[in-house]
Amino acid sequence: MAQVSAVSPLAPDQFPQLEKVDGVELFVAPIGAGYHGRKNLLVARMIEGTSVAGVLTKSKCPSAPIDWCKQNLPQGLARGLVVNAGNANAFVGKVGAETVRATADAAATILQCDASEIFISSTGVIGEPLNAGPLVDAMSAALGASATFEDAANAIRTTDTFAKGAGASFDLDGVEVVISGIAKGSGMIAPNMATMLSYLFTDVPVSADVLKSILVDGNAKSFNAITVDSDTSTSDTCLVFATGAAKSRGVEPITDLDDPRCADFAQALHAVLKDLALQIIRDGEGATKLMVVKVEGAVSDQSADVIARSIANSPLVKTALAGEDANWGRVVAAVGKAGEPADRDQLQIRFGDLVVAKDGYRSPDYSEDDASQYMKNQQIEIGVSLGLGDGEATIYGCDLTHGYVSINGDYRS
Amino acid sequence: MAQVSAVSPLAPDQFPQLEKVDGVELFVAPIGAGYHGRKNLLVARMIEGTSVAGVLTKSKCPSAPIDWCKQNLPQGLARGLVVNAGNANAFVGKVGAETVRATADAAATILQCDASEIFISSTGVIGEPLNAGPLVDAMSAALGASATFEDAANAIRTTDTFAKGAGASFDLDGVEVVISGIAKGSGMIAPNMATMLSYLFTDVPVSADVLKSILVDGNAKSFNAITVDSDTSTSDTCLVFATGAAKSRGVEPITDLDDPRCADFAQALHAVLKDLALQIIRDGEGATKLMVVKVEGAVSDQSADVIARSIANSPLVKTALAGEDANWGRVVAAVGKAGEPADRDQLQIRFGDLVVAKDGYRSPDYSEDDASQYMKNQQIEIGVSLGLGDGEATIYGCDLTHGYVSINGDYRS
Repeated sequence: MAQVSAVSPLAPDQFPQLEKVDGVELFVAPIGAGYHGRKNLLVARMIEGTSVAGVLTKSKCPSAPIDWCKQNLPQGLARGLVVNAGNANAFVGKVGAETVRATADAAATILQCDASEIFISSTGVIGEPLNAGPLVDAMSAALGASATFEDAANAIRTTDTFAKGAGASFDLDGVEVVISGIAKGSGMIAPNMATMLSYLFTDVPVSADVLKSILVDGNAKSFNAITVDSDTSTSDTCLVFATGAAKSRGVEPITDLDDPRCADFAQALHAVLKDLALQIIRDGEGATKLMVVKVEGAVSDQSADVIARSIANSPLVKTALAGEDANWGRVVAAVGKAGEPADRDQLQIRFGDLVVAKDGYRSPDYSEDDASQYMKNQQIEIGVSLGLGDGEATIYGCDLTHGYVSINGDYRS
Repeated sequence: MAQVSAVSPLAPDQFPQLEKVDGVELFVAPIGAGYHGRKNLLVARMIEGTSVAGVLTKSKCPSAPIDWCKQNLPQGLARGLVVNAGNANAFVGKVGAETVRATADAAATILQCDASEIFISSTGVIGEPLNAGPLVDAMSAALGASATFEDAANAIRTTDTFAKGAGASFDLDGVEVVISGIAKGSGMIAPNMATMLSYLFTDVPVSADVLKSILVDGNAKSFNAITVDSDTSTSDTCLVFATGAAKSRGVEPITDLDDPRCADFAQALHAVLKDLALQIIRDGEGATKLMVVKVEGAVSDQSADVIARSIANSPLVKTALAGEDANWGRVVAAVGKAGEPADRDQLQIRFGDLVVAKDGYRSPDYSEDDASQYMKNQQIEIGVSLGLGDGEATIYGCDLTHGYVSINGDYRS
């Protein structure tokens, strides 16, 4: 059996230095005995007037906390976030919604707000009832001392091999504003789920509708552009909280997408989202290589996206990467099976800058030595040009290794 | 590293006893030095009046032989079949079509028919030019002595761990008629393709259009209902040849789908197709368990099919099977991610006869001991009831093991 690394070989050297965000206080605590001895409750308290936007799993079998967030997001107001790790509160029948309600009510009392301003996530085992009692007790205990973003990122981990954070600071109206974010995913172990959770906080004053629009755009090129094993969790959640605290330093609220400052804010937010998303790939189970699939020349962006996902999710392409094999035949097969318009005889395939195939045939410049050398890199770019139109897409994935099978198959429940 | 078995643990005990089919002669020979020392050319000669129907890969990047078969199938007439193993003649630019043309012309001369009555398949490496010369030489040599179906099944193997055959004999107009078939798939090794090839032969006199209709129906519940790793080859082919030789024994031709004898013929043909398809799953790379996914209660058969494939292709479900873990949480996630209508709180999930979850919650009758015991079986049935309608589907798959990763990843090209 293959060894599973304690920490992913693709992990960053250390947790980044993240700026505090005015208007946000973080707290962590263990629920009961904690999760593998770790503090596994995160509570975030936000000041009045904080706006929120989110994207949630499209799973048709979502967890109870997803239902709760979905119901509250349209209001666009947030005062609290409660996340527990270890139990997903998913597929537990009606008791799931009852636990969420009890948790939100308790948080609303503690944070002195309306329950509809409390956002809740749960990650961990599914099918096991989650009791609100110990969670509420932990919540009260948590508020004793405030925590850092690194503490928060650690609290929401399940089988992640490292805590994930990313941030940005930039100038708006001559004032320095910040975005700090954390994420978890995509480790999983019996019978847990591959849940992706992410929470971003900013002091920029921005209305919920503008925030939503910018988040959706950024999400498409970050969390929605990554795939470890094509499996979607019942609990995937990304929430962005904007406290607006920078108003007190003279930043005017952004309330309109036509506001020219949207571009600056979007650029920073998108960079943080992408950084967090790539960290999730870097913690993909058993991953030893990061795969970047760039498709261009498709008939549309949508078509390019389908083809890029077909490549990034192909078990044959993924195992070829693990084997450091420049196996473009498997890339051709993955393009072909995508079902999107493609012309075999116009296809060009690159590994990095090396053109391995073009015009429906192995490139005359192809050097097996060069290709083998390139495949030893930790980050591998697979480029596909279809030559049919202007559609393009980039999808991030990882290799499929013995480590993946060990993590997900070598156990008895 | 996991050991890869020489022969799949799911292989049948032996190649079945297949009946000769009147009007068909089989020949095998090595092309050059053969393929790993094996005879790797199959030639089948059929009598005049033989009708043919086929289903071909839907890959948008098909091989040159696929283009050739696609062009000839509408005519519905066949006199010869030529299959080589070791080189797929795929993604080799224009030279691919030239090789096919030269092979067909040579076969037409040898078998004294029109080139359009010659059907061609190639399986093996892609991206390497295939020379017609050695293939044509081998063809001439092959016709010296006739071969058995087992010889034929061996000739078309690439990395298959066993030769695949299935047959049926049944009564039509008081006369015994036969169907004998062979298949290959889905072994693959660098840089070969997971090609599925199958050829069936019958002495039943049946028109090409009726044959096509019955084949398409049967294919949907056999070759199109199996998945090893969701990867589609550039060369997948299933052809059925009907010599009509049973006419001489008094069987009237079937030329109309309303002919009541269609049901008998279809039943037999479908059974052979399904037997061959399941043998391909049983030879799935690294497979140690056969997975049968039965979905019922979906809003439509199409919807049930999408959900069943989502489960059968989920790496998390596949590794759970490898780990003999009754992990219904991963089944819930796979249902959820399929994107088809599903109601979490009406979902029922079975492993074999054991109801593990119902009404959106773990079944009160659930016994972990019973479930663990069941998961030790070589064939695992996962049943999902959605409770929404009458749609149903059955999809066959296999587990994802270290063996799969070893076969497809543990090498350098």
